[in-house]
Amino acid sequence: MLNATLTLTKIGVKQQMINEFLQKNMESVNNYLHDYMDQLEDCVPLKLKEAMEYSLFAGGKRLRPILLLEMSKTFGNNIEDSIPLACGIEMIHTYSLIHDDLPAMDNDDYRRGKLTNHKVYGEDIAILAGDAFLNYAFEIMIDHSINLSGNKQKDYLRAVKEITKASGVGGMITGQVADIMNIGCDVDVATLEFINYYKTGQLINASVLAGATVQGVSNEVIEELTNYSKKIGLAFQIVDDILDVVGDQKKIGKNLHSDEKNNKRTYVDIYGTQRCKIIVGDLRKEALEHLNVSGIENNNIIELTKFICGRDY
Amino acid sequence: MLNATLTLTKIGVKQQMINEFLQKNMESVNNYLHDYMDQLEDCVPLKLKEAMEYSLFAGGKRLRPILLLEMSKTFGNNIEDSIPLACGIEMIHTYSLIHDDLPAMDNDDYRRGKLTNHKVYGEDIAILAGDAFLNYAFEIMIDHSINLSGNKQKDYLRAVKEITKASGVGGMITGQVADIMNIGCDVDVATLEFINYYKTGQLINASVLAGATVQGVSNEVIEELTNYSKKIGLAFQIVDDILDVVGDQKKIGKNLHSDEKNNKRTYVDIYGTQRCKIIVGDLRKEALEHLNVSGIENNNIIELTKFICGRDY
Repeated sequence: MLNATLTLTKIGVKQQMINEFLQKNMESVNNYLHDYMDQLEDCVPLKLKEAMEYSLFAGGKRLRPILLLEMSKTFGNNIEDSIPLACGIEMIHTYSLIHDDLPAMDNDDYRRGKLTNHKVYGEDIAILAGDAFLNYAFEIMIDHSINLSGNKQKDYLRAVKEITKASGVGGMITGQVADIMNIGCDVDVATLEFINYYKTGQLINASVLAGATVQGVSNEVIEELTNYSKKIGLAFQIVDDILDVVGDQKKIGKNLHSDEKNNKRTYVDIYGTQRCKIIVGDLRKEALEHLNVSGIENNNIIELTKFICGRDY
Repeated sequence: MLNATLTLTKIGVKQQMINEFLQKNMESVNNYLHDYMDQLEDCVPLKLKEAMEYSLFAGGKRLRPILLLEMSKTFGNNIEDSIPLACGIEMIHTYSLIHDDLPAMDNDDYRRGKLTNHKVYGEDIAILAGDAFLNYAFEIMIDHSINLSGNKQKDYLRAVKEITKASGVGGMITGQVADIMNIGCDVDVATLEFINYYKTGQLINASVLAGATVQGVSNEVIEELTNYSKKIGLAFQIVDDILDVVGDQKKIGKNLHSDEKNNKRTYVDIYGTQRCKIIVGDLRKEALEHLNVSGIENNNIIELTKFICGRDY
């Protein structure tokens, strides 16, 4: 009984630690993002800036930039060059959410507990706010590259490349198109994995790899981290599917059963909730094993991995 | 009489020369663009690739990439590093047209004599095809930077920066938002100039500056070229407004009077066609003067300038 209580207390402490870690890092990412938004030129129409800030500061957990920054800290002391990458990836994520929610796409009214961008600012401004984020992400990433030199610049540009590739035609956009094309279809596991690998997995993968690449890590480690990110990317998506069915609407901040409404087949449809939880548990084990092989002992990354593979269900 | 005939013949010969120059260069830009489209990964859904190629090869004149490449040839012998910049800028232009035509924006059915992207592929795919071009533009530009070094890399990244700035939040997107926000308004000349400077002028400006910057030209020349590109950017827009009223629908390839339909005020509304033609003539003179001051004697640039300031009316 005493042992059981001690174990539960330990879990509680760890839960509190990761929550504090996430909160602290979320705030610091928010500060970086505010700085970038403040740097927008005076010519930018206020309505556009407002629409952008509405979605950028709608309460995202900042998992991708936190993952990127933490991975960067794991391999180097200086994370200055990782800040534009982290903010760039969050802006790309935000653009993808604004466009995904549009009436011509998923037609969602709520995101993170708030009305979606087009419900507040209209479809035209929402399309342009999305475009603006995609542009601004590249702008801040390229701007930063200009003042670097030598290997630092080379590593930085390779990290930017990871992000552009992940968000691009052969990355997230392929996933979004495949997702749309399979609406209402009786998709098999292979198709579902294809969609999720591109639509969700690519940006998570880029967060991990860009954070490591910018610090000039070896190809061997990059290979191991690619395997790691595949596991957490898949786990992240399955958890998302589970939450869409059994989650707490207030915590998730969007309507439950959105996949059902949008006629999208999910892992839960194929395997059921219980089996999905087991798969996520296995993925977590495998992800932690890849971290171990990569020689990563950064406890924050380990706890972050556990958090991603089992958020709040 | 003899002199008049000789002058007309000379104009005819010059007209033929610029047409041949444009045709030849358009074909070469098309080849570069086809090469890039062929490099898309196998995972990219065919429907997305088809939708992208539909708009990219819908018959654009390629003025921006031709301007960029010709400017680059003026200042250096090697244009290899200018090719991704030229293709990038054309892809960014294409993305902006696809999104501009959407029902939530200008709601246009025709572009360059063909149905607009969303009329053929649906709004969802059109939004994503636009996103795909914006992404791919940055992807090919960043990819190319990785294998450069030293001053060459520095100049190249500065040229990429010109393009990202021009297409970005404080560039073309500001123009698009201002354009939308002023629909149906009795806009004054200052507002119209603001809209056009950002919406149309920025990418033309970036074509000129990126072509020169990538060859490492001095700040003095860049300053003079900035003045030059402001003149041709404005002339380009006024000519567009004139063509929307008096142009040959078959040549333009879109419905005439689209500005009137979209309730957008133009230079023709403010000044009338005749006065607009005089303004364009003045802008042409000033643009040629700036070229002269920049020391540019490249006859192709001079003829291209005359062509931009007076297309087919």
